[in-house]
Amino acid sequence: MSSPLILITNDDGIFSKGLRHLVKLINPIAKVVVVAPDSPQSAQSHAITINQPITCEKIDVDDGKQIDFICSGTPVDCVKLALAEILDRKPDLCISGINHGSNASVNVIYSGTVSAAVEASVHGIPSLGFSILDYSETAELKHADNFILHLVRKMLDKKSNVCLNVNIPKFSDKPISGIKVAKQAKGKWIEDFDERFSPMGKRYFWLTGNFINEDDALDADQNLLDKNYISVVPVKYDHTDYSKLDLVNNMLND
Amino acid sequence: MSSPLILITNDDGIFSKGLRHLVKLINPIAKVVVVAPDSPQSAQSHAITINQPITCEKIDVDDGKQIDFICSGTPVDCVKLALAEILDRKPDLCISGINHGSNASVNVIYSGTVSAAVEASVHGIPSLGFSILDYSETAELKHADNFILHLVRKMLDKKSNVCLNVNIPKFSDKPISGIKVAKQAKGKWIEDFDERFSPMGKRYFWLTGNFINEDDALDADQNLLDKNYISVVPVKYDHTDYSKLDLVNNMLND
Repeated sequence: MSSPLILITNDDGIFSKGLRHLVKLINPIAKVVVVAPDSPQSAQSHAITINQPITCEKIDVDDGKQIDFICSGTPVDCVKLALAEILDRKPDLCISGINHGSNASVNVIYSGTVSAAVEASVHGIPSLGFSILDYSETAELKHADNFILHLVRKMLDKKSNVCLNVNIPKFSDKPISGIKVAKQAKGKWIEDFDERFSPMGKRYFWLTGNFINEDDALDADQNLLDKNYISVVPVKYDHTDYSKLDLVNNMLND
Repeated sequence: MSSPLILITNDDGIFSKGLRHLVKLINPIAKVVVVAPDSPQSAQSHAITINQPITCEKIDVDDGKQIDFICSGTPVDCVKLALAEILDRKPDLCISGINHGSNASVNVIYSGTVSAAVEASVHGIPSLGFSILDYSETAELKHADNFILHLVRKMLDKKSNVCLNVNIPKFSDKPISGIKVAKQAKGKWIEDFDERFSPMGKRYFWLTGNFINEDDALDADQNLLDKNYISVVPVKYDHTDYSKLDLVNNMLND
């Protein structure tokens, strides 16, 4: 049997530790093609580039047998370009990450990492988005290696068209408790903009804020992460709120 | 009773015809505050600006009694900034649009217009995203005025925390068939990148593609629009695919 083909991308940029770690981990079990952004694209969500062109070039990163392409677009652009222009066949799996920072709870809607995985699933490709709860560029990542490999092997084996948002606890003395299927925890960011003035007196703001977990369910991703579990949330791109169809129908016809 | 407070934003930019038309339509029934991007932000999805600061200034557009703020950020940044820094109380409604171009079917996941409305709903604010199936900057918009006002009044009346993705057929000789609650049609874009070379020989790509409607359900938004109905899809930001929880559980424990 020929080697599976795995597309790897991310939103922190092609040289980020999280992506390079993932490539080294996956190289032995698949043919890996990396198509990833040339610059940090955090919080780019499902943005695509329509008002300017995108460049994409093969580069030699020289850290393994994978093939690397560096792209000027967003994470979702990278996936679109990989599928339409770079890969000679549909990949068996698309993996995005490992993102430096959490994509649990409401973070998923802002996430470039998960959106890249979602874009693959739009095209019928099973996909995984990995994120670690550590924003540091030098985050320790090895503690999740076996879990990541297990999940990748299962995804290759089952071939289900499912998109999984996987969050990994930050490295600590405490071993990982396990891996659990979860739902997106209810939560939100309360913004606290940092207001400043330029030397010319022009006002500007830096976006900062605090995350509020509003969910106490045991199977909410944020709560599992708090107990040192890896959380795995299946994600879909049908955003219809089916529970509200009747309410809206009544409202329109009232 | 005091006038309701309505926040208006969009993704085409503060001077776009769609937004200015909406402002004129809503001014008579509410206190309107506009916080909108200074430049086109189409297809920015739920992107937020975290690696650079944002500017936001009051400007005098002089086309009505509303108050206008022009912002350097994305549509979602505009909503966050409005709620945290500009408005003195939580608005009764947030309206995004009118977008020049469709946000039906899978377009919703790329849409800055709908994402701005979704961001408001994260903060518990009822919200509406309006889009017209006409990309022209001078699109005719008046044919939907009565439907838009009806919907806005209903939303103010019911105060339900619901976020609605509303798409409006392009103006034609045919009158609008009506307004219907819908679900997001299954569909996708098949990319067809336009490959070019710069004068220096560097390869670049323009993103282009064709939309494929994969849904034949009568209540799918794309199909209602094809029959000249206005489609109204309730949208949620819990992206968990609950239908796949068992499948993923079995996969992990197999």
